Amino acid sequence: MLAESGEEIERATGHRLRVVRALVRDLDKERSFAPPDGVLTTDFADVRDDPSVDVVAEVMGGVTPAGGYVRELLRAGKPVVSANKQLVAREGAELFATASEAGVQLRFEASVCAAIPVVKVLRESLIATNVHRILGIVNGTTNFILSRMERGATYAHALAEAQELGYAEADPTDDVEGVDAAAKMAILATVAFGSRVTPDEVETRGITELTPAHIAAAAELGMVVRLVGIATLEREEVDVRVQPAFVERSHPLAAVDGAFNAVMLQGDAIREITLEGPGAGGIETASAVVADLVSVVGTAGTGFLQNDACWRELRRLDTDAWRSSFYVHLDVADRPGVLAHAASRLAAHEVSVAQLVQRLEDGRASLDLVLHEAPFGRVRGALAEIAAFPEVLDRPFVAPVIA
Amino acid sequence: MLAESGEEIERATGHRLRVVRALVRDLDKERSFAPPDGVLTTDFADVRDDPSVDVVAEVMGGVTPAGGYVRELLRAGKPVVSANKQLVAREGAELFATASEAGVQLRFEASVCAAIPVVKVLRESLIATNVHRILGIVNGTTNFILSRMERGATYAHALAEAQELGYAEADPTDDVEGVDAAAKMAILATVAFGSRVTPDEVETRGITELTPAHIAAAAELGMVVRLVGIATLEREEVDVRVQPAFVERSHPLAAVDGAFNAVMLQGDAIREITLEGPGAGGIETASAVVADLVSVVGTAGTGFLQNDACWRELRRLDTDAWRSSFYVHLDVADRPGVLAHAASRLAAHEVSVAQLVQRLEDGRASLDLVLHEAPFGRVRGALAEIAAFPEVLDRPFVAPVIA
Repeated sequence: MLAESGEEIERATGHRLRVVRALVRDLDKERSFAPPDGVLTTDFADVRDDPSVDVVAEVMGGVTPAGGYVRELLRAGKPVVSANKQLVAREGAELFATASEAGVQLRFEASVCAAIPVVKVLRESLIATNVHRILGIVNGTTNFILSRMERGATYAHALAEAQELGYAEADPTDDVEGVDAAAKMAILATVAFGSRVTPDEVETRGITELTPAHIAAAAELGMVVRLVGIATLEREEVDVRVQPAFVERSHPLAAVDGAFNAVMLQGDAIREITLEGPGAGGIETASAVVADLVSVVGTAGTGFLQNDACWRELRRLDTDAWRSSFYVHLDVADRPGVLAHAASRLAAHEVSVAQLVQRLEDGRASLDLVLHEAPFGRVRGALAEIAAFPEVLDRPFVAPVIA
Repeated sequence: MLAESGEEIERATGHRLRVVRALVRDLDKERSFAPPDGVLTTDFADVRDDPSVDVVAEVMGGVTPAGGYVRELLRAGKPVVSANKQLVAREGAELFATASEAGVQLRFEASVCAAIPVVKVLRESLIATNVHRILGIVNGTTNFILSRMERGATYAHALAEAQELGYAEADPTDDVEGVDAAAKMAILATVAFGSRVTPDEVETRGITELTPAHIAAAAELGMVVRLVGIATLEREEVDVRVQPAFVERSHPLAAVDGAFNAVMLQGDAIREITLEGPGAGGIETASAVVADLVSVVGTAGTGFLQNDACWRELRRLDTDAWRSSFYVHLDVADRPGVLAHAASRLAAHEVSVAQLVQRLEDGRASLDLVLHEAPFGRVRGALAEIAAFPEVLDRPFVAPVIA
């Protein structure tokens, strides 16, 4: 890509980028291209100490040894472009401090949603608008699985298909448990709100507990189920979470199908801007890496956006104060008064019901409720009381609604 | 906005932006803010000759006198940020040459789709991907009208509602005839393909000929009607057009509702990236203007992306060679053999039919056809022959299909 786009890059920056070193594990591995002699090396020091290296792209992934290498490169005065979400999300504070001390840039567009330029848009295009909410479908694997379940597949079948197509790893834990999405949302929240959020601080719930019944209930309510990251800035407090959410069909995120990603940025001046595209893939990631390399070369010598995006330390919003509309599913014994009992508990916590669907099957009833917006604490309080009813047969299922 | 975002801007660029001059028509007009003494002026020379002015935002609109002012400012060594689509689309060649000669920047993000950062994304984020097709809903007024017609309104009613809500001007010609969309598509094609396209070169058809019957036919075929700009780069030839198009419901552009805009960029590495958001509005436009001011200040002294986006001169694609799937509507007399006759003419031109809906009403029949992808010339040829049938009662209606 660097070779193919050489002219474009030269027109934009005045420089022709040339690959002079590439750190690899195995010099003799068969490759689809023939690197010039002397480019490939297995010794990191060859990259770090080569004075002809002006900027380095880190695309090895993993926190170790990538993190150590990036730090050494920055200290050696070499700007770095990273596609490594776990590294940026977990060690960002230290890495950006190192970059700043050395006076070189560290860019990371490719670490979130591959070719979708959400970091540049947040930092440069939306600089004058206070972005206070981010909604993101930032994991293609889970979105593919949920899209398949919408068409009738079970979770297990959809996962198997995703694995066959190469969308999901043999061990899909990071995707289906929301770990991957949490790292991306942590990076986006950090950039948008200017305050560091680490993946550990992201309340994360995956899609493994979802059943065809949830998907069917969503369809009945005019919604679809998506794994959604939600980052909120409210009165100088931050909340970031990843969980299955019920998304109204008319919402732009409901239209995101298959392995695509989408990020909706809500701000004061812009209302909302949505970016959608392929959030993974080798060539898509390369496109973002090259764009970052070009930005590094193009803005070298200025102070433009070369600092850490973090400049303040915001408190975490109390989870109970986090407000949303919610979907609740209850499995109850089909006895008179259960609904009234549940409704009175919700009312006692000042939670009101927007929509209700009741279904009966051999002595059991299932209740699907959509609740009006309320602080999560009140909903949780009411549900804890409801769960204790003898008529309630299973733990209540709750998910935010995105309208 | 400059005052409110002062700190963010200073963090990003190291500079605090201050409004030192503002050219206005009327010093005494009542304003919602109190400008400091000496800022307002009715004399352009006060802006041009003030050495403390480092960058100018042009938000006056219109080609005259804005064009003359921008040229003078550039010649005086002042970078300019413009929100003026007609000026950038019509006089871009000269303006960018002037900027380049003077060694100052001319940026124009706000001239296309307000707060949606499509120019920056095209120039910076997608630099290494050969963007070869742009699909755009770039006029909010017509999209609002079409969204309303979809829900049953007539064109006249929908237009009146758009005017009431302030989405459409008293004289809506520029919007409904596609003039506004053509200027935006010309700018986007120029930036994406690197070859100048002027609005005169954009084949433009508005929405005034659309009737509820077209909208109903689209619904029956699982589609919606949108005013879509299509820019194509094919074998080093360019085609740019604006016209009503039939968009499949599952396509991201079909989900763009009301006055929102969306631009889909298709390229080699990215497959497609879609940006959606408010494409008009004072504060939304201001957000893009401020982002450009920040980019100008942040990259001053570098050569980064400060040249004209145009660097080559591509030929125009012969319209007859432009390929698409098409929707065709025919009003015919209800006589035996008409359908077979029409089908044989299409087949003679090697155009095949993908879908057909026939409706009868008192001696007339209406035929709605969806044609497989074909060069427009063949479709046009077949339709010219079909239009000459005595059984064909009205001029055939044809629109591209976006699948």
